Amino acid sequence: MATAGKVIRCKAAVAWEPNKPVVIEEIEVAPPQANEVRIKIVATSVCHSDLYHLLESMHKDGFPTVLGHEAAGIVESVGPGVTEFQPGDKVIPLFLSQCRECCFCKNPKTNQCEAAWTRIRQEVMAGVESRFTCRGKRVLQFMGTSTFSEYTVINQIAVAKIDPAAPLEKVCLLGCGVCTGYGAAVNTAKVEPGSTCAVFGLGAVGLAAVMGCKAAGAKRIIAVDTNPEKSEKAKVFGATDFVNPKDHEKPISQVLTEMTNVGVDYSLECVGNVAVMRSALESSARGWGVSVIVGWTDMHDIAIRPGHLISGRTWKGSLFGGFKGKDGVPQMVKAYMDKKLMLDEFISHNMTLDQVNDAIELMKHSKCIRTVLSVSPQ
Amino acid sequence: MATAGKVIRCKAAVAWEPNKPVVIEEIEVAPPQANEVRIKIVATSVCHSDLYHLLESMHKDGFPTVLGHEAAGIVESVGPGVTEFQPGDKVIPLFLSQCRECCFCKNPKTNQCEAAWTRIRQEVMAGVESRFTCRGKRVLQFMGTSTFSEYTVINQIAVAKIDPAAPLEKVCLLGCGVCTGYGAAVNTAKVEPGSTCAVFGLGAVGLAAVMGCKAAGAKRIIAVDTNPEKSEKAKVFGATDFVNPKDHEKPISQVLTEMTNVGVDYSLECVGNVAVMRSALESSARGWGVSVIVGWTDMHDIAIRPGHLISGRTWKGSLFGGFKGKDGVPQMVKAYMDKKLMLDEFISHNMTLDQVNDAIELMKHSKCIRTVLSVSPQ
Repeated sequence: MATAGKVIRCKAAVAWEPNKPVVIEEIEVAPPQANEVRIKIVATSVCHSDLYHLLESMHKDGFPTVLGHEAAGIVESVGPGVTEFQPGDKVIPLFLSQCRECCFCKNPKTNQCEAAWTRIRQEVMAGVESRFTCRGKRVLQFMGTSTFSEYTVINQIAVAKIDPAAPLEKVCLLGCGVCTGYGAAVNTAKVEPGSTCAVFGLGAVGLAAVMGCKAAGAKRIIAVDTNPEKSEKAKVFGATDFVNPKDHEKPISQVLTEMTNVGVDYSLECVGNVAVMRSALESSARGWGVSVIVGWTDMHDIAIRPGHLISGRTWKGSLFGGFKGKDGVPQMVKAYMDKKLMLDEFISHNMTLDQVNDAIELMKHSKCIRTVLSVSPQ
Repeated sequence: MATAGKVIRCKAAVAWEPNKPVVIEEIEVAPPQANEVRIKIVATSVCHSDLYHLLESMHKDGFPTVLGHEAAGIVESVGPGVTEFQPGDKVIPLFLSQCRECCFCKNPKTNQCEAAWTRIRQEVMAGVESRFTCRGKRVLQFMGTSTFSEYTVINQIAVAKIDPAAPLEKVCLLGCGVCTGYGAAVNTAKVEPGSTCAVFGLGAVGLAAVMGCKAAGAKRIIAVDTNPEKSEKAKVFGATDFVNPKDHEKPISQVLTEMTNVGVDYSLECVGNVAVMRSALESSARGWGVSVIVGWTDMHDIAIRPGHLISGRTWKGSLFGGFKGKDGVPQMVKAYMDKKLMLDEFISHNMTLDQVNDAIELMKHSKCIRTVLSVSPQ
């Protein structure tokens, strides 16, 4: 490619400071260094974790940055030592890397690559500076990916190669939300055929969890949300019941326990709210219920009575649905191509990168499921 | 037997009110009714749950009562409809029943019999009054068992028949503490061969958990207690390391994480303290660590950061070590008879029922592991 080895000037959405609109800027993207891949982002969707960083956690140290981590693109060039990727490869960035070498990657029980944690803690690229500058200032990388940009540079351990025939404007959803929810049901909760499930929160992650419960053979899937408009969509993905906690005076855990006699076999919290996490655990069956925290928050403690665990419940958490990204994401792309997985149904809006603030506003007010932003032409 | 069908007058330790010494009284024990078994208690040990009821939870509704739930005895007579037991059978009372009929008993994932919960909530015998009276007053049954008495009447769903050759003054420990700790490691945590474990709290339950970890093939077993005198005993049961949190300025979770690089594979909380429950979870490895709450308390919430679960830990609880009592207790008795399980090593003191308050004081001040009280001659 003509751009290989050179700095690329391109468009990106820069988040200069917390709690302010992001700004479309011209940025400079340096060439990939050793073990890095420069990717032309074709499509990116907006996920709640982008809003969490911008509007909720607001760590000042994490700015300026380029948000975005749910995307798909095409390799533009690779740095020294990269053999797994070539220019032209279709790829999905991974906010949770798979280095294949750390004790986490080598353990089949977890997808939590050590390198990802190091990077997430530093909020920048593995151990060094990011490859972005804008108006003479260094711009940080976000979640190791930063996909609200026409080009981004990512460590090769955080990139999954996918089927060249895959439509990037659809499969971008597999970079976070859909894998997160689907995998939480299938990989983390390990939902069993014939079981009863409850999914709390019907954003893209929750709807994907519903889809995962159905794929795993659940007999009854109770979708829970305070927004009654979510009911129809939940049924598209396989929900058999819809419960709005606002329609009941009793706690939702009591409502679900009465509906199911003993509580649900599996409950999945897809909101990121500590009170809902407690409700989800309390809604699961004494004796064998499994409750999985899927929604992200880490600003407050969650509280629970010890008796709720001693009486036989299991409480777990899930990150990226338990998928090891390089292995799992291509399989999920294949499942979509084989029509075994829905993706189109999650996309409520299509926009361009220039409209990213509108997309953020839609999500902030729960007016969308997923907005896909077209970034670069293919 | 000459006593069958008649009221038995015998000696029992009556707890008249919370936070007072129990009183050795003559009580009346009515004959067993339908589905009930009257048992001559030969030996009973004092467990922390007895103290919890007497000194910590202190629900006034739960008095007067006869405490005691870790015991062994001989069937004196049976009520109508009882075919499983005959006078002369050696038995262990079960505070957690196994009715074999409820949805919990039929589910291999749990030992939490529905009938037990109903009874525990009511603090009395299944649905009706207890069979004890003393000085003209009704005396409640405790945990469905009440073994600080020469005779007690228990529903047949809460009695396990054991090997007639078993020494009752030893196997009484299998009525609660030893099964609770051992099973928490083997059945609930499902400790794997070659793994690293930490056990918090080295009372009888914790020591039994150490023994369970060893039986499951753990490579490293770190015993944790603030009392340095526990170190030697822990090694008897299989501990490879002893850590006293008081010897460190850092939080114990940090100490254990540094000792093991990533945290322990399995942690077992055997104290019943919400702060220790949190430490135990935090000490387990990110990615795959499993933490089991074994110690009982339900007066305070436990708190934790959601990130500790989302990063891949599993939090569970265990009651009676996950054993279904009628099935599991006879197997544990057999393991002891086959010299595959230690019991004698738990017994630090032998006394008689008359000395029960001394035994309670010893436990209150952590001056014993288990005190076995001789109750009736065989």
